[in-house]
This record gives sequence, structure tokens and C-alpha cells, in this order.
Amino acid sequence: MKILLSNDDGINAAGIQALREAMETVGEVVIVAPDRPKSASGHGITVHKPLRVDEIRYSNSSTKGYAVNGTPSDCVKLALEGLLTKRPDIVVSGINFGPNLGTDVLYSGTVSAALEGVIHGIPSIAVSLASYEKEDYTLAARAAIQVVKAVVEKGLPDETLLNINVPAVPEKEIKGITVTKLGKRIYKNTFEKRKDPRGRDYYWMAGEAVDLAGDPDTDINAVKRNEISVTPIVFDITNYQLIKKLQEWNLSLEG
Amino acid sequence: MKILLSNDDGINAAGIQALREAMETVGEVVIVAPDRPKSASGHGITVHKPLRVDEIRYSNSSTKGYAVNGTPSDCVKLALEGLLTKRPDIVVSGINFGPNLGTDVLYSGTVSAALEGVIHGIPSIAVSLASYEKEDYTLAARAAIQVVKAVVEKGLPDETLLNINVPAVPEKEIKGITVTKLGKRIYKNTFEKRKDPRGRDYYWMAGEAVDLAGDPDTDINAVKRNEISVTPIVFDITNYQLIKKLQEWNLSLEG
Repeated sequence: MKILLSNDDGINAAGIQALREAMETVGEVVIVAPDRPKSASGHGITVHKPLRVDEIRYSNSSTKGYAVNGTPSDCVKLALEGLLTKRPDIVVSGINFGPNLGTDVLYSGTVSAALEGVIHGIPSIAVSLASYEKEDYTLAARAAIQVVKAVVEKGLPDETLLNINVPAVPEKEIKGITVTKLGKRIYKNTFEKRKDPRGRDYYWMAGEAVDLAGDPDTDINAVKRNEISVTPIVFDITNYQLIKKLQEWNLSLEG
Repeated sequence: MKILLSNDDGINAAGIQALREAMETVGEVVIVAPDRPKSASGHGITVHKPLRVDEIRYSNSSTKGYAVNGTPSDCVKLALEGLLTKRPDIVVSGINFGPNLGTDVLYSGTVSAALEGVIHGIPSIAVSLASYEKEDYTLAARAAIQVVKAVVEKGLPDETLLNINVPAVPEKEIKGITVTKLGKRIYKNTFEKRKDPRGRDYYWMAGEAVDLAGDPDTDINAVKRNEISVTPIVFDITNYQLIKKLQEWNLSLEG
């Protein structure tokens, strides 16, 4: 099995190294990841400057790494269209340090790397550790192995990736793996307005996440219950239900 | 009617100025947009540096503009959570110079600005001129006026924006306004591998878009037929159909 890894915390992050070691137990691994942290880069791509690639070797491993001065999407795109000679069987992005839950997945570089795999017709998953504090990837890596094996065995529909969030708690507190839907998360008091030393205003993004209660079967609520959350995400974002209704608007240039 | 404008081509782009003039005929306008072009920025947000805001005035107009050193998402977020004292009735993003069709909307800064409006519960639309050559926004601005009026009158469901692409042809060749779904677009020969003056490799994103034929009712095909395309886009990207099937996988940490 050929496995392409990427992430948005950068190729030197502990999370992608834990993922590499886990994936080396199930297949042939190659890493193409940003050369530095690219969190909250969304699904941006780099069109206005050249991309540089530096090769990286790992001790006690035949895995090759490529550090790219681009976004997570750039990395997977470049891997699949330029760097790799063989098409991978699966793209795995992560393990992200911090959750990628609910509305936030729209901003997630981790998810965007997996999305790029899906756009290229390759089954893809994104894996995140749902904690900003405790950087222990052991369980998340084990969950990734299980999901990767299942995905390669059973396949995924076109245009769909799996987004996995693993609670940062000891194994005995984990309540299993739950299939979820995306929850909703809003931010309160997002911007702090400050004055710089010269008296000019500036704004800094801050604020705290507020999870809207929502249904029990959201990813946010599953992680709160110490369940490992697996959410199927689709990239055809057409609102099909609305098409017929909009047709009845009878829009025209004349009004 | 209070209208918030943004874009990803930057506050000085001709497209947002054409949009401003059009929107001033139907409501009270404020612009919060990037201080420079931010194309293909996806839904990125800026968390690691402060955001600066510069006020801009326009001749013969009471519209206020704010230039922000951030992404389109940053601009709308900052407008709604920091800068504006009144909540707008609608967010309009554009008019983008170049199409935002099919798979490409996932990378679009123009669409991401509208998405940020939707996340905040405000009806939002994105408007693009489907040409990289002829920068005449007259028809696109007129289409925007009609859609804005319809949206404010009829409303949109939660979590949905409208993505509008206007063919760059004379009015007499326009075949009306069609409600569409997102098409699929792939890129061929995306990366050019070159050598720099010092003999080091670099990669530059290039390649040509190849539209997969698909159904006649896609946005891509509508624009080819010289129809103005209106696509409803939803930001709950959960693949609901797949949830039940995934539950049958019976995933566990043990495998």
C-alpha cells in the first residue's frame, strides 16, 4: 500500500512524525508537507511564486520526505502532479495538533490537504488530536491505522474524505469510534483592538470558540464525550435542495 | 438596505468599484476588502499577525472603504465582529476578475468572503466575471443588483450562499440567468519544473483547466452557453448519505 502524508503544522511537527511511524507499519510512505507551520491556511494555493522542494531523510526508515514552501494544498497537488512517480492508494493528512471540528474545518489546512487528494480521485483522510495542550499522538496514530485499513479495504465514494478527531485522553477513557456530522462552532469576542507603540490601531484575532449545542451526533459533541469522531465530508457543496426553489425566482437582468 | 462588500482582487480592483457603484443604487454600502490582491487565498484566516485597517473615501459617494492587510475571510470577519456598528442585510463579494466555477470555488477567495457572511448568518452572494481578458463589469453589476434584490426580498436558507458567474459577452448574446450545480474542473500539466540561475530546481503552478463534460446543468456548461450562472452553495459539507454506511464499518481502535 502506498501512502502519501501531508499536514499543515509543517514537516517537522511531532504529529506528522508520529503518523509516519504508524503508517510505515502498514505501507510504503512518502511525506510531502509544508516546510513550516501553515495553520488556518484554508484551501489556498500558491500561484504567484515558485515552489521549492527540499528532500528529507529519516533515520532507520526508507521513507522519503519533501519539504515544500507552500500550503498543504500545494504540497498534495505538487506530490500528485509533479513529485511522485507512483499514484498513492491513500492520502493521510495530520496528525494535526489541535481539533478540526464543525465549522472550523472550512479553515483547516489539514482538511484541505485531504481534500486535494479527493479532488485527484484518491481516498483521503484527515486526522487531528483534539487538544491544544497535550501532544501525545499515540491513540490518534492507532486510530489512523484502523481507518486507513478500513478505507483501503472498503473504499470511499467519490468526492468524500473522512475527518477524524481524537480526544486527548488516556485510552481507558476513550468511548469508541463514532460516525458523526459536522457541528457548529462560533467565536465570541473574536478581535482585540489594540494600539501600537506609535498610537495606531491594530486588530488581533482572538476570541473563544463557543460550540452551539446542536444534536448529540455532531463531531463536537462526540469528542466532548471522549469518542473518536469520524465525519464524512463531501466536496460537492452544491445545495441541491435549493435549485428548484431558485428556479422559481425567475431571475433576469431586467428585474 | 445595508450592504457589505468585499473581494479577493483587493480594494483597488476595478471589479469592486463597479460593484460599489451598482450597490449604491440599491442601498447603503460599506467596503471592507484586502489592501492587495489575494486570489486563490482559499478560506485562510490570519491568526499569527495583527490586522491593520486603513480608511478610504470615494469621490461623489458617502460610501466608506476599509483596506485590511488580510485575506477576504479576515475582512468580512473583522467587518462583522469589529468594524461595523450595524449588521449588514447582505454580503456581496466581487466582482471577481475571472471565473469561479466548479471545483475551483474551493480555492476561491471571492467565495470565501461570502462564506464568512453565511457563517455569521447573513445572506451572501459571490459575483465573478467569467473572463480573464475583457474587464467590463457592466452586465455582472446589473446581474448582482437583480440577485441582491431577490435575495433580500425572498431570503436564503441558513448556511447557503449564491455563487454567480457572468459570461463576458455583449448583452445581446446573454441567454438569461440559469440556476446551476457545481461542475468539475481538473487541471492538466499543472506544474512546470524549471531550473533557477544557480541550477536549483523549482516548480511553478501552471497548467490548463480541463472541464469535465458533465451534465448540461453545471455552472461551467451554463457559462459556455452564455448564460449567467447562479449556483446555491452550502457550507455544511457533511456527507449525510455516507453516515449510515460508515457506521456499518464498526471501526475500533483494535481493528
